[in-house]
Amino acid sequence: MRIRVVTPVTASEFSEGAQAIRDILAAARSDDHVDHVQIERGPASIENEYEEAMAVPDTLRCIVEAERDGVDGVVINCMGDPGLYAARQLVSIPVVGPYQAAGHMACTLGHRFSVVTVVDSVVPMFWDRAAVYGFRPSLASVRVVDIAVLDLEANRDRMTDRIVEEATVAVREDGADTIVFGCTGMAGVAQRVAERLSARGLDVPVIDPAPAALKLCELLVEMRWSQSRRAFPTPGPKAMPGYPDLVAFPRAGR
Amino acid sequence: MRIRVVTPVTASEFSEGAQAIRDILAAARSDDHVDHVQIERGPASIENEYEEAMAVPDTLRCIVEAERDGVDGVVINCMGDPGLYAARQLVSIPVVGPYQAAGHMACTLGHRFSVVTVVDSVVPMFWDRAAVYGFRPSLASVRVVDIAVLDLEANRDRMTDRIVEEATVAVREDGADTIVFGCTGMAGVAQRVAERLSARGLDVPVIDPAPAALKLCELLVEMRWSQSRRAFPTPGPKAMPGYPDLVAFPRAGR
Amino acid sequence: MRIRVVTPVTASEFSEGAQAIRDILAAARSDDHVDHVQIERGPASIENEYEEAMAVPDTLRCIVEAERDGVDGVVINCMGDPGLYAARQLVSIPVVGPYQAAGHMACTLGHRFSVVTVVDSVVPMFWDRAAVYGFRPSLASVRVVDIAVLDLEANRDRMTDRIVEEATVAVREDGADTIVFGCTGMAGVAQRVAERLSARGLDVPVIDPAPAALKLCELLVEMRWSQSRRAFPTPGPKAMPGYPDLVAFPRAGR
Amino acid sequence: MRIRVVTPVTASEFSEGAQAIRDILAAARSDDHVDHVQIERGPASIENEYEEAMAVPDTLRCIVEAERDGVDGVVINCMGDPGLYAARQLVSIPVVGPYQAAGHMACTLGHRFSVVTVVDSVVPMFWDRAAVYGFRPSLASVRVVDIAVLDLEANRDRMTDRIVEEATVAVREDGADTIVFGCTGMAGVAQRVAERLSARGLDVPVIDPAPAALKLCELLVEMRWSQSRRAFPTPGPKAMPGYPDLVAFPRAGR
Amino acid sequence: MRIRVVTPVTASEFSEGAQAIRDILAAARSDDHVDHVQIERGPASIENEYEEAMAVPDTLRCIVEAERDGVDGVVINCMGDPGLYAARQLVSIPVVGPYQAAGHMACTLGHRFSVVTVVDSVVPMFWDRAAVYGFRPSLASVRVVDIAVLDLEANRDRMTDRIVEEATVAVREDGADTIVFGCTGMAGVAQRVAERLSARGLDVPVIDPAPAALKLCELLVEMRWSQSRRAFPTPGPKAMPGYPDLVAFPRAGR
Amino acid sequence: MRIRVVTPVTASEFSEGAQAIRDILAAARSDDHVDHVQIERGPASIENEYEEAMAVPDTLRCIVEAERDGVDGVVINCMGDPGLYAARQLVSIPVVGPYQAAGHMACTLGHRFSVVTVVDSVVPMFWDRAAVYGFRPSLASVRVVDIAVLDLEANRDRMTDRIVEEATVAVREDGADTIVFGCTGMAGVAQRVAERLSARGLDVPVIDPAPAALKLCELLVEMRWSQSRRAFPTPGPKAMPGYPDLVAFPRAGR
Repeated sequence: MRIRVVTPVTASEFSEGAQAIRDILAAARSDDHVDHVQIERGPASIENEYEEAMAVPDTLRCIVEAERDGVDGVVINCMGDPGLYAARQLVSIPVVGPYQAAGHMACTLGHRFSVVTVVDSVVPMFWDRAAVYGFRPSLASVRVVDIAVLDLEANRDRMTDRIVEEATVAVREDGADTIVFGCTGMAGVAQRVAERLSARGLDVPVIDPAPAALKLCELLVEMRWSQSRRAFPTPGPKAMPGYPDLVAFPRAGR
Repeated sequence: MRIRVVTPVTASEFSEGAQAIRDILAAARSDDHVDHVQIERGPASIENEYEEAMAVPDTLRCIVEAERDGVDGVVINCMGDPGLYAARQLVSIPVVGPYQAAGHMACTLGHRFSVVTVVDSVVPMFWDRAAVYGFRPSLASVRVVDIAVLDLEANRDRMTDRIVEEATVAVREDGADTIVFGCTGMAGVAQRVAERLSARGLDVPVIDPAPAALKLCELLVEMRWSQSRRAFPTPGPKAMPGYPDLVAFPRAGR
Repeated sequence: MRIRVVTPVTASEFSEGAQAIRDILAAARSDDHVDHVQIERGPASIENEYEEAMAVPDTLRCIVEAERDGVDGVVINCMGDPGLYAARQLVSIPVVGPYQAAGHMACTLGHRFSVVTVVDSVVPMFWDRAAVYGFRPSLASVRVVDIAVLDLEANRDRMTDRIVEEATVAVREDGADTIVFGCTGMAGVAQRVAERLSARGLDVPVIDPAPAALKLCELLVEMRWSQSRRAFPTPGPKAMPGYPDLVAFPRAGR
Repeated sequence: MRIRVVTPVTASEFSEGAQAIRDILAAARSDDHVDHVQIERGPASIENEYEEAMAVPDTLRCIVEAERDGVDGVVINCMGDPGLYAARQLVSIPVVGPYQAAGHMACTLGHRFSVVTVVDSVVPMFWDRAAVYGFRPSLASVRVVDIAVLDLEANRDRMTDRIVEEATVAVREDGADTIVFGCTGMAGVAQRVAERLSARGLDVPVIDPAPAALKLCELLVEMRWSQSRRAFPTPGPKAMPGYPDLVAFPRAGR
Repeated sequence: MRIRVVTPVTASEFSEGAQAIRDILAAARSDDHVDHVQIERGPASIENEYEEAMAVPDTLRCIVEAERDGVDGVVINCMGDPGLYAARQLVSIPVVGPYQAAGHMACTLGHRFSVVTVVDSVVPMFWDRAAVYGFRPSLASVRVVDIAVLDLEANRDRMTDRIVEEATVAVREDGADTIVFGCTGMAGVAQRVAERLSARGLDVPVIDPAPAALKLCELLVEMRWSQSRRAFPTPGPKAMPGYPDLVAFPRAGR
Repeated sequence: MRIRVVTPVTASEFSEGAQAIRDILAAARSDDHVDHVQIERGPASIENEYEEAMAVPDTLRCIVEAERDGVDGVVINCMGDPGLYAARQLVSIPVVGPYQAAGHMACTLGHRFSVVTVVDSVVPMFWDRAAVYGFRPSLASVRVVDIAVLDLEANRDRMTDRIVEEATVAVREDGADTIVFGCTGMAGVAQRVAERLSARGLDVPVIDPAPAALKLCELLVEMRWSQSRRAFPTPGPKAMPGYPDLVAFPRAGR
């Protein structure tokens, strides 16, 4: 089995072996079958609808390449799940988005979950996508630590403190019984957050979304399940000026 | 007042003064204040999530240019509303999407509406966006005429016949009391469809979405209303390799 | 084009050229094609279900008269939309209610809106009608300034202050990104409220519902759209003791 | 205990001891404490939003009179529940509407119910009110026998046949497990309909709404429960030109 | 008419003529036709999903016995409605659960109700069952007095104080206009709670669920209505090792 | 890692190495860490609410024993998920139910799924639980093959044919894009059903729920995630006459 993590942002913080990716591999005990690529064109990080949209074309290129490389499944390494549905139309291997994966997983562990994410500008995206993914009734709240994505790595302690604070409010006031991190850049502190919440008497699962997505992807590969072709039909051939890398869609043999 | 229609597809059928655009202008009695541009990079037409995603970057460029040109409002000329929310973050002038506009307008004319669109592959997109836009409970059904977008112009009569057939089923079996065209390429036959439905005893409004969006845009400009900045916050400056045209975001003075 | 505003209350404050009506006309730049009538039988103002119900019969008479007078469209000048669905069954010209119009318009400008209205006794009506109109999921909250309808005119400054206060809470605590006034008697201060909210860092559209309804009505007339006859079927002839003015329904030729 | 049935239509078929009322009394074994009045101003029967609206003012007069007469509870004898919420604001005794009562009662007997009613023009009213009453998710379908209200009495056998036919489709195709009659004029045949459905292997409760409302009203009187004053606040005094009978609201001592 | 109250807990507090039962009988003016049994195997009280599940087998035995004894209807005396749907499959007489009955009754008295119950561990059960029963949109909140079931009897005054406190918050902050007690062990203080809330200006109905269920059961018996056999089909014969008392299902003659 | 499959029915067909269990182990490539137990008291099979309720006490005993035996996670081998929430309160190791697991997994592969199950009497249970689990909006339909659970093993070919037939209707008419088997007794034919659907042009994932649950359980164990203690609080000590095996709850050290 080979899984590829596609990071849909161009900031070098992510490419130079950021802690997030290392944590993902460690969590998965999957060092031997997971590799990682990063897009070359697109936003440094994703913190709004605009940046997410701009990340999609090159993310799709990376995912199509992954299938051509014989990879068995792909995880998009961003809680905005950029290009998730478009990518599923282009490849047969399973494509997993961390928000969709972590959200549904949270639904199997409790009644209502809260997302604790980075900044205000991404909050509406979580609500909108929850409506599309079908778990909006189970989403108790979306709270922010108010730290930009690219500042997370340099502020791990403050980030952790703030996550604990907001998760505490989510459980006590918003009625959440499960916490989902709202940025894959928060990877690696879930265990610590869970312990500190538990010390406050709040025994709730804390879901790190990138590992959740990676493990779900492994599960799908093992079970030979993939996204529904009926739900995500293969596009026919069509001119696409300005995007020569993607002109070969759809692949023969679909 | 100046309104710009941005067509987010590259097929020349659309650029050479297609009937759709002429109909839009005529319907709006707005020939003097509406102009039209078309993207240069992106799909020939939009019939799935993939093509829609690929249309967004150049659509955003056109919309930012429109504001710089002093235009007062923009209509995205495609029922997929590609880039709608991203564009709203980038400009202050109102940006209107035909699906969102026509859907909410249909809600003010009846209890439940059906979309009659082109092909199966776009059906899930209408349901998903209805969930985001908030009118999913009012969406009775999404039906298809099974004619590709780029074949509509050459098959106006068959297209009209098929729309009438599917709209009839939508009203009789799905409980719709209002019909919304599911492709801006269908523009211009709404009146004829309404008359033929009426001849069958089905008196229902038939909404042509591009004119609906254009007129809503005019209304917003006249009232000096625009999208909520709170809902669509302006992105901060950020590196965007590969997209030099868009690097100047956000504009000064926001 | 001729539009008629029907005010469904009998208080003279409204009939003697109240500021609300003047503002509507000014906002619409429509002084030349909008006229105004007021009911003669019914409540002085509408602040509960009872008063709304009592306003309906004479409102219907006025709307039927409007069509007989050759008017092209009607706006009911009250956020309770009294008689909206009944009137639509009686005439072919479009009949627009401010709450339905402003609510759906708000949905096209943001994700969630709040209504700021007069007094507690009308709050349940906004929730109930939101369920009927289909936008209940997008309604963040209904807040009150606690000033009776007939006291608004004499307390414009306090009214404006209170609207700003409640709108601030709606945005900060209830998650609204758009504000809709909950009484057509609040007409005329939307611009001022928006500026004061903006000065607090809250950039949200503020929708004055009567102008919103008037402009939507103009749009429908221009597009020759009207309410769905399928949704609002014409009543057959039937005895109606006690209401001789209305006995001629339905009109010939429907 | 004294209960008053208020019939909100003026047709003499209802006033001259129609079978419906006799059935109600018999079903309730309540002949000794139920009386009956009928409005004097308003529609002969109610088959659309217009007629329902016109029935309300005199219905309110009758309900206020009922309380002044010392009656303990009121049932509005029409499935449109005309004036239900307005009346509740005007009196302290419980006011019960057959649709609300029968709908919630159906919810306690099965998972999903269907309404079988008279004609197409009332169908949207059942859906709209289900949204307000909160049981829209439990409403499987609304089906019609296509017989006008005033023709029901002269066509009892055909009415019964048609109810059985539509109820059969409701159970087999729409997933209903409980049937609610959609017109109080259908009173008296519920037992027969249930037996014929049972003979087809469809064992479902068949709810006659007027008796359901009457028995719920008795229950409320016995338990000394009434509508929430918080939900239905008492109107303050206010001018009401054209309706002298109602001018004395609100009563002293509330 | 004979109604049997089945108490699905084994604590002797309940069996020795607890105030709750006496209140139920008094409230119902039904002393002559209501009797009471209590399960012999199962939890002392029910305060979580586990205890509720363990109460079901013996509750079913009691309900089947009730039908064999010729009883006309059964009320399960616990707000968790343990075994409600299973019991309905086993008998033809109506089986009523206090939560379902009181919840739907509350829906007929106002717009939104709150449950005031015993301890945190039962809160999710109220939300879950509201989803199944269909009234989740009408459930404003679930609040707790933080007194264990078996301590209620010894702390009637503190219990009443706490109910008043939580009900006050439910009305003022959660938007409830009706209160439902969330434990049948709270029976008997509804009138007092309502008076104290009224003294605070909060005029809301306070529903005691066991009497509500008992009166609804009487109503169903009088109307000869029972649960839908279509919704709750009779099980066929099947081996059931370990539960000899229940082996005779289904009864002949069904 | 050790996972235990608890089969909550007593029929020997299941205990003697039924194909279902073997398939589960094969699918999981988990033969070395999965064992299997079966309850001793309870129904032969589960086809209604009654039988499900009767299966719960001994299922809980088995799950508590599993934790005492040092097992790392438990799968309840029945699509009714009997005792799922109660069991979660009693143990700290993850307890997974096939319906909840497979339903949420289906949501990550498409837009809407259908359940194809055994007999009519279980259909309402799937709808009810979908409401509790939060995925009711994504459940397109529940269809039945009309073969009793205990007859599945002897009729594998007919079962497969019938599943294909009903799944075809689910996709073509109900709008499903993903199929979930509605009985763990159907295990082992998913691949064959998917191929036959694909031969009909219906490319949809076919989810075998027991393996889905087993793999999700492995994932949770690997990630050290378990159900939320906040959502499923540990019961305190309490008398439980008639169930001596369970009297030791809660375990020390929780």
